[in-house]
Amino acid sequence: MTELVKEKIDQAVAILNELDIDVWLTFVRETSAVGDPILPLIYGHDLTWQSALLISKKGERIAIIGHFEAETARGVGAYNTILPYHESLRSVLLETLQQLEPKRLAINYSKNDVHADGLSHGLYLVLLDYLAGTPWAERLVSSEKVLSALRGRKTAGEIQRVRNAVQTTGEIYARTFSYAQPGMSEKQVADFMHAQVEELGLGLAWDRDHCPVVNTGPESPVGHVGPTNLRIARGHVLHIDFGVKQDEYCSDIQRLAYFLRPGERAAPAQVQHGFDTIVSAIQAAAAGLRPGVPGKDVDIIARQIATQAGYEEFKHATGHQLGRLAHDGAGILGPAWERYGDTPYYPVEAGQIYTLEPSLIVPGYGMVSLEEDVLVTDQGAEFLSPPQTELLLL
Amino acid sequence: MTELVKEKIDQAVAILNELDIDVWLTFVRETSAVGDPILPLIYGHDLTWQSALLISKKGERIAIIGHFEAETARGVGAYNTILPYHESLRSVLLETLQQLEPKRLAINYSKNDVHADGLSHGLYLVLLDYLAGTPWAERLVSSEKVLSALRGRKTAGEIQRVRNAVQTTGEIYARTFSYAQPGMSEKQVADFMHAQVEELGLGLAWDRDHCPVVNTGPESPVGHVGPTNLRIARGHVLHIDFGVKQDEYCSDIQRLAYFLRPGERAAPAQVQHGFDTIVSAIQAAAAGLRPGVPGKDVDIIARQIATQAGYEEFKHATGHQLGRLAHDGAGILGPAWERYGDTPYYPVEAGQIYTLEPSLIVPGYGMVSLEEDVLVTDQGAEFLSPPQTELLLL
Repeated sequence: MTELVKEKIDQAVAILNELDIDVWLTFVRETSAVGDPILPLIYGHDLTWQSALLISKKGERIAIIGHFEAETARGVGAYNTILPYHESLRSVLLETLQQLEPKRLAINYSKNDVHADGLSHGLYLVLLDYLAGTPWAERLVSSEKVLSALRGRKTAGEIQRVRNAVQTTGEIYARTFSYAQPGMSEKQVADFMHAQVEELGLGLAWDRDHCPVVNTGPESPVGHVGPTNLRIARGHVLHIDFGVKQDEYCSDIQRLAYFLRPGERAAPAQVQHGFDTIVSAIQAAAAGLRPGVPGKDVDIIARQIATQAGYEEFKHATGHQLGRLAHDGAGILGPAWERYGDTPYYPVEAGQIYTLEPSLIVPGYGMVSLEEDVLVTDQGAEFLSPPQTELLLL
Repeated sequence: MTELVKEKIDQAVAILNELDIDVWLTFVRETSAVGDPILPLIYGHDLTWQSALLISKKGERIAIIGHFEAETARGVGAYNTILPYHESLRSVLLETLQQLEPKRLAINYSKNDVHADGLSHGLYLVLLDYLAGTPWAERLVSSEKVLSALRGRKTAGEIQRVRNAVQTTGEIYARTFSYAQPGMSEKQVADFMHAQVEELGLGLAWDRDHCPVVNTGPESPVGHVGPTNLRIARGHVLHIDFGVKQDEYCSDIQRLAYFLRPGERAAPAQVQHGFDTIVSAIQAAAAGLRPGVPGKDVDIIARQIATQAGYEEFKHATGHQLGRLAHDGAGILGPAWERYGDTPYYPVEAGQIYTLEPSLIVPGYGMVSLEEDVLVTDQGAEFLSPPQTELLLL
């Protein structure tokens, strides 16, 4: 991981210059208990006592850490000043700020972006105590724009890792659809997928409880719900939502199959119509996914295709970023709903990876949804694996 | 885990009454990215959208969560009101507070206790926005005392789990000291321990990088540092710090051995003296570890034994709580240093589990330290496994 940390910190210095932020301070403690999701990108280890990672526009990289973690900090190889302390971080931090003299000091919180919100409120109050009476207390800003750019814009090494995870996921899906049969329960399908992940020595992209989500037929509860004992039957749509974590990077893919009833040669018209609608929505959203476009404008493309085809509006975003986390980065391809804050307004940038995952309900058949992973390039969106465009008939 | 969640929530209601807090609100979002360490105790799953778990003095247990997680929330079985929402949590939360009318509303942040500080600062600002203009904005207090009691006071089920983890750790240590030989590197010893953990299907109590810590001889870097390529030689002290996570609960134990030089029948006097000092310090601290005593008073017992024996004062606490996390709970057996906040002043309580881990350096030989895990009972401290009282000679 060390190479990746160096790549990302170099990128961070450039972003600080772009955003005119003098110093970016990541302030954490006991990250094995309350982690900051940026830490794996800029440090690669947990930190125990109160610790301050400072990166400046001029390229200084300073780690103020508990004395017993000095060796680990040196081992990261990305920080040119390691300041170990014994009893309290306060004086070392204040001296460091005095030397750096930031006019704008960005710290690790964000109302809008959970992945830029690693500073806990109690620790923020501790920081305010430390800065009381200094000029820096007045110069604090959120580092969310730094983190959004840093997490969103994938380096070549990061893109390759996601690509690998996506490819593995396709292979697991192929074996899973060969395996799935009428009479099997959702849980059996999930167990089969888990066994493959374990055999490959990989992790899951999210909580094992509902990775994969497996829905067979109209009775299956929809959402982030674990697989049930419901059994696949002929006439069922089988919907799976699944991703792996490979070399610390994630995939997130949904696939669909239909189990033909005796005598059927094709899926029922309403299932096929739902499927075609989703494929169109994904293709149209991908065509609209270009640098500079606000995420909400991509969302509306997919959303309108579903509603204009007569389906109820889906209750989630069309897509989210993907990377080290299954839900990665700030900007979202989502509607301007309050709970998304201002993230639907963030412009799409080259180097970001998004999911595209519109969904709809076909009455009597249940959830119809696909999810593809796409890379934004200057030329537009590139699918990281062949998208599903034909309903799988089993 | 469901039984444990119910046990802990019942316990929480009693604690709210004891502390006269009307409602305890745990406010989180996307906990797979930024988790709240209390969540495994009171919910047992991740939560994705902004989510509010409310427990009241009167025994109400309310979960306000994204609609797609309603099934999971019902499955927890510990919440009697599940309020799923679609677009924004704000109105559901305000209506709920209106019904509960808390005079004191405890929320999940703490300056002192990282394990009670799961509310990120950005999300805290979001909560303030929601509460603006309501009476509840003025009634917020920290839930740290609730969490300290809830996490610290182990239920019978929790104590049994830690006991099991401690026992397993002892077995792994026994096999490791049979295996360790002069010429082996620290890394080889760590690999052997990892292989055992994997064979048993267990997890590690902390970061794999330095679980175990393995130090052989005086050149080995001390602290939370990973094992190196340094090789065990005769005349070395071998120090290991290690713990497992078994059924979600942790152990944390340090052990010591000495490799006899040709002709030696015992360890050098200065090594034996260091070892005996540590054993005395642990025994004395255990004797002083009783309900009602502030943690700092236990710390000073061990600390003084080391300094009065002529060693430099150790730069860490004598002990920390242990449970679901290797560093669990608020109160610490530590000195009144700034970075510990007020946690050394917390009184010890029955049902808490602590480590006892004084350390010292023997010049020319390196780190001499042991760590034992003890349960506080009304009668005093109970060692959860036989403490090491003889230096192992190999």
